[in-house]
Amino acid sequence: MGLIKYANLGEIMLSKNQIKEIQSLRLKKFRDEQNTFIAEGIKTVAEIIEQAPILLQEIFATKDFIYQYKTKLRQLNIHFTEVSEDELKKISLQSTPNHALALCNYFKEKKDKFDFTTNFSFYLDDVRDPGNFGTIVRLANWFGVSTIYASETSCDFYNPKVIQSTMGAFLRVAVKYAELEQLIASEKIKTVYGAVLTGKNLYQQKLQQGLIVIGNEANGISELNLKQITHPLTIPSHQNNGTESLNAAMATSIIASEFFRQLKVQS
Amino acid sequence: MGLIKYANLGEIMLSKNQIKEIQSLRLKKFRDEQNTFIAEGIKTVAEIIEQAPILLQEIFATKDFIYQYKTKLRQLNIHFTEVSEDELKKISLQSTPNHALALCNYFKEKKDKFDFTTNFSFYLDDVRDPGNFGTIVRLANWFGVSTIYASETSCDFYNPKVIQSTMGAFLRVAVKYAELEQLIASEKIKTVYGAVLTGKNLYQQKLQQGLIVIGNEANGISELNLKQITHPLTIPSHQNNGTESLNAAMATSIIASEFFRQLKVQS
Repeated sequence: MGLIKYANLGEIMLSKNQIKEIQSLRLKKFRDEQNTFIAEGIKTVAEIIEQAPILLQEIFATKDFIYQYKTKLRQLNIHFTEVSEDELKKISLQSTPNHALALCNYFKEKKDKFDFTTNFSFYLDDVRDPGNFGTIVRLANWFGVSTIYASETSCDFYNPKVIQSTMGAFLRVAVKYAELEQLIASEKIKTVYGAVLTGKNLYQQKLQQGLIVIGNEANGISELNLKQITHPLTIPSHQNNGTESLNAAMATSIIASEFFRQLKVQS
Repeated sequence: MGLIKYANLGEIMLSKNQIKEIQSLRLKKFRDEQNTFIAEGIKTVAEIIEQAPILLQEIFATKDFIYQYKTKLRQLNIHFTEVSEDELKKISLQSTPNHALALCNYFKEKKDKFDFTTNFSFYLDDVRDPGNFGTIVRLANWFGVSTIYASETSCDFYNPKVIQSTMGAFLRVAVKYAELEQLIASEKIKTVYGAVLTGKNLYQQKLQQGLIVIGNEANGISELNLKQITHPLTIPSHQNNGTESLNAAMATSIIASEFFRQLKVQS
């Protein structure tokens, strides 16, 4: 963020302008203008320092965090500012701020192509809940899915709540936004699974590499995108359980697990 | 709640005392004193009216909800009060209150015993996050697990956020609190699985009926309870994915799915 420049260390009070500017990053519009997103918490910020320092613009952190990382941060030539707990509260989006907040540059677009003939991936069709979205990124990372896809109506990857709930996995999974039909055409994807209510039993299918479409939390997969599904799948439930649905993150966990089991563990 | 009594309908303003009393139900102490918990939202409250009206003490709802249900509520002799959106905000725990809030009686303890020789169930060891806890209840319901167990240090089942995140499944799944060792002894459970970092590959085990222990979000299964595990299990991940863990609800989703697949779908 070009406007914020100051000394490397010391108990400098944050100005109202700084606070306002950081707070503005809650909104996509301002993130996009600045190409900047927020990542918070000891573990996440430490992980960025270790694994992707190139992302870092600057760090605001409490004394203990600064003490632990200042040598490293100076080596890397990364701006950092010590803040009090109260100051951190003003810029943090967490109800309980966790010692460090980093302003990060947007990722550069990955050039390597995801290979749909040897891997499975997910397409999030209008997944709106940042917690679900971030959890699915974390899950993709766990099961070795390096790129996932999402509709433009889905959450913004750089939403602070998405970043937070990936628990660091945002560093290792790319999210690409595309219309489903165009994605299928451009990547020549042959097999498109969809999680629906009346598909075939997930456990009884011989699953293949391809794309798995996960629908909106309330409305499922859009009518338009349903037309693209070549293999509708359903997670079977116990009979008459009275529960209508699993949430998007749970359903994706179960589906990812079964794809992983069949494609990577069994074979 | 004995103190609250008033006419059945009409735009009666909530008194400060009423608001205070309802708000106090956020705390276990007051819930236990009153044997009363809060359930919120159109869908959840409608489900209670249909499926378990015996739980209902009274309902606070906006005009539209009252209009739709007043005949039924009168038939069932359930107190209800029309409130404005603003009044609902004062008593609701949701950031966006959803038309109806019900005060409910605690469940009567179920007398039927869970049969560990024909079913699997979960033991939540210090699962503290209400969202995780509620999600696991929802998941148990989906996979036909009628009773789950939890340590006393885990979330309270009647925590409003737990109730909320079960999406109605709290009506169909019993949660019993017990120490693990005592539960195993009293129910003569032979097979105790535990989700740990260094167990056997979940997908490569022949899974049996029994109890599956799910650990705390940050610390996993307690040392004391680890001693009870007869079958340590691990959800395998893609090599070198850099993600250390899945969250408790995701891990439970995957494990429940695999038990269900092996025990109820394959056979």
